[in-house]
Amino acid sequence: MLVAHSEATRRPKVVVVGGGFGGLEAAKALASCKADVILVDENNHHCFQPLLYQVATAALSPADIAWPIRFILRHQKNVEVLLSRVEGIDRQLKAVKTSSGEIAYDYLILATGATHHYFGHPEWSRVAPGLKKIEDATRIRSHILRQFEEAELAKDEATQHRLMTFVIVGGGATGVEMAGAIAELARQTLGKDFRHIRPSEASILLLEAGPRLLLAFPSALSSSAERALVAMGVDVRTRTAVTSCNHDSVEAGGTLIPAGTIVWAAGVKASPVADWLEVPHDRSGRVPVAPDLSVPGDPDVFVIGDAAAVTVNGEPVPGVAPAAKQMGRYVGQLLANRIAGGKRIPPFTYRDYGALATVGRKFAVGTVGRLRLSGFTGWAFWSVVHIYYLVGARNRLLVVLNWVWSYATFQRGARLIIGTEPPPMNGR
Amino acid sequence: MLVAHSEATRRPKVVVVGGGFGGLEAAKALASCKADVILVDENNHHCFQPLLYQVATAALSPADIAWPIRFILRHQKNVEVLLSRVEGIDRQLKAVKTSSGEIAYDYLILATGATHHYFGHPEWSRVAPGLKKIEDATRIRSHILRQFEEAELAKDEATQHRLMTFVIVGGGATGVEMAGAIAELARQTLGKDFRHIRPSEASILLLEAGPRLLLAFPSALSSSAERALVAMGVDVRTRTAVTSCNHDSVEAGGTLIPAGTIVWAAGVKASPVADWLEVPHDRSGRVPVAPDLSVPGDPDVFVIGDAAAVTVNGEPVPGVAPAAKQMGRYVGQLLANRIAGGKRIPPFTYRDYGALATVGRKFAVGTVGRLRLSGFTGWAFWSVVHIYYLVGARNRLLVVLNWVWSYATFQRGARLIIGTEPPPMNGR
Repeated sequence: MLVAHSEATRRPKVVVVGGGFGGLEAAKALASCKADVILVDENNHHCFQPLLYQVATAALSPADIAWPIRFILRHQKNVEVLLSRVEGIDRQLKAVKTSSGEIAYDYLILATGATHHYFGHPEWSRVAPGLKKIEDATRIRSHILRQFEEAELAKDEATQHRLMTFVIVGGGATGVEMAGAIAELARQTLGKDFRHIRPSEASILLLEAGPRLLLAFPSALSSSAERALVAMGVDVRTRTAVTSCNHDSVEAGGTLIPAGTIVWAAGVKASPVADWLEVPHDRSGRVPVAPDLSVPGDPDVFVIGDAAAVTVNGEPVPGVAPAAKQMGRYVGQLLANRIAGGKRIPPFTYRDYGALATVGRKFAVGTVGRLRLSGFTGWAFWSVVHIYYLVGARNRLLVVLNWVWSYATFQRGARLIIGTEPPPMNGR
Repeated sequence: MLVAHSEATRRPKVVVVGGGFGGLEAAKALASCKADVILVDENNHHCFQPLLYQVATAALSPADIAWPIRFILRHQKNVEVLLSRVEGIDRQLKAVKTSSGEIAYDYLILATGATHHYFGHPEWSRVAPGLKKIEDATRIRSHILRQFEEAELAKDEATQHRLMTFVIVGGGATGVEMAGAIAELARQTLGKDFRHIRPSEASILLLEAGPRLLLAFPSALSSSAERALVAMGVDVRTRTAVTSCNHDSVEAGGTLIPAGTIVWAAGVKASPVADWLEVPHDRSGRVPVAPDLSVPGDPDVFVIGDAAAVTVNGEPVPGVAPAAKQMGRYVGQLLANRIAGGKRIPPFTYRDYGALATVGRKFAVGTVGRLRLSGFTGWAFWSVVHIYYLVGARNRLLVVLNWVWSYATFQRGARLIIGTEPPPMNGR
């Protein structure tokens, strides 16, 4: 067994898998608890996913929105952070199997998030990547920028047009934000830089199978966001389901659209927690959990965040960052209480603070309680909220500066095409 | 032929290969010349190499020190920038062969720089990477940070010690700067973040085959830099030649040193310009050029920067950024003059402004004319110079902020381990 020193003590051991919004909050909520906490993640960094689209569109650098997990938790003495990939769970032995050995647990919190869902077409992932990790964002960034470079070199207009066609599949917040950001990149940032193409003539298509964009928002705000996108030159097509994704085209609503870039923002699927636990899951791979977020029949194992299917008062809890954080805090407090021998705490409740989606650099829609926001006011609110939740003063300052600069100049600071990296050193 | 539109005109065509310090200056010097300039580079960005070591040691993000070449030249109407890899040169046809077709030239400026030189051991490149490109820096960064992560997981002290041993080969400016930066990363930045290892106990070795560090500097400054490194806990070994590099050790001066990381800063070799041109080259692969930097016998082809072996008044011109910029400016002006039908201009002369090398975040040594700088004064001067030469107000501001923050907190903002990226989209 790994980390032998912790076993010498009699303190219970809480293993948290995943250093996203949920996992971090759970670990923090256990700060003053007499337990040893082990947080395992396959990445060394916590990534602020709501701003990933800005990395993918060259506005921010990866390090602006990511921070080492062990740095975030460095002052919390009862936590250790392990960089390992989880490969399975042995519930009989109460152990997590990782790439660097097994870790025994007394309590287990699974906060592994979600990945993209291609609705039965996993082969589309190769040509239509989604946006969940830093690597996804830098890959999409390089790809988008490379399309303009190749269009500049292309000899015929059809090829140029295809290379300069960007299709975003899925009209939720991520799709809306990507479409707006690519439109700005093409229409404004790249304006004067080419000699044989006009980047401003790029086609940006946003395809949504449902009747309107931003289904989670009131319909007035959907219309408002759609109008803003259309004003930026985005071709918004609702009730348009994608039937095929290829490396140079997408088929949707019976039409073949030649396109050099497809970005997938249509659906997410929970990471394989249900398989690890050998428990049932819903259509999106999420584990239905008990009212205290434990796995039914196993009170020592919890699933939180995007990996869990949680219902509060008959309403499903959405897969958003604030929900994951609330679940993390709840389970952390529940365990702290249980370990201290306190009385049981009531079931998890979800507090919905609203939702926000931004369209380009000065427009956003959102709901905050009963308030409806749209336009620049929405954008200002969106900015403040996102800056507030970023980890660390440095990141806040750098992101604000990048935005101010970008706002003033229409430029983007991170227009780097970085090739496929060579294999890591030492052949590993 | 590519870029057919340029051929329709009668204006002479100047092809510049490479968007580094030399190539960019050459293109800029041709701004008001009645010629079409084509700058070809395999990267979309100009990289400020003197600060690459700060990316490799997690202090700066790639986008802080890199900028799209076509953005830098966007206002210069007679330049176009092509993202292509040069594969050869046909001097009979006067054409450059690239990954996207042939480009005809009337005048050719080769500014392709240099890569690492392993002195007959190319196999060492796999385990002992050097630092020339953004990708090198992010790869070394991930590797260094991963060593501490693996040491945290390691079960025995010998393995921990090996993983936490960092060997830098070569005591020139890059080697000295890397050694200082890794020492600070280990001793200060990572201080509180681990539970099973003490990063401050890492071994950092700087190996130099020659009698002292910084051979290009006066020996008093070499001693001063060495003392500063030793005070930071760097094990400096001069007169110690490396005889073997392996994935878990390095052999030097008859001793086998177990080490998880080897960084190569020992020598550079010019890119394959001499092979393309089928002309002689010196031991470092550089093309000996005529006093006007043209290839002997071919007055229309020029080699500048690290790819050229230039002698001025019997002294070799060093392979540093200011020399490359001066050569670029010279050849640009020479061609502008020739195309305008002016009289010949005198041979290239090199103006040596001095040299600088920094040791950690508050010490540098340098020469500026007859002045010798050492300590904090040197560092302050070094900072001002480097900030001044960065491209763009945004980059200057971001780098200054990162430095101030780092100076105040000992932290580093870009501690990201980013895995091997998946293959680029569309299978390319």
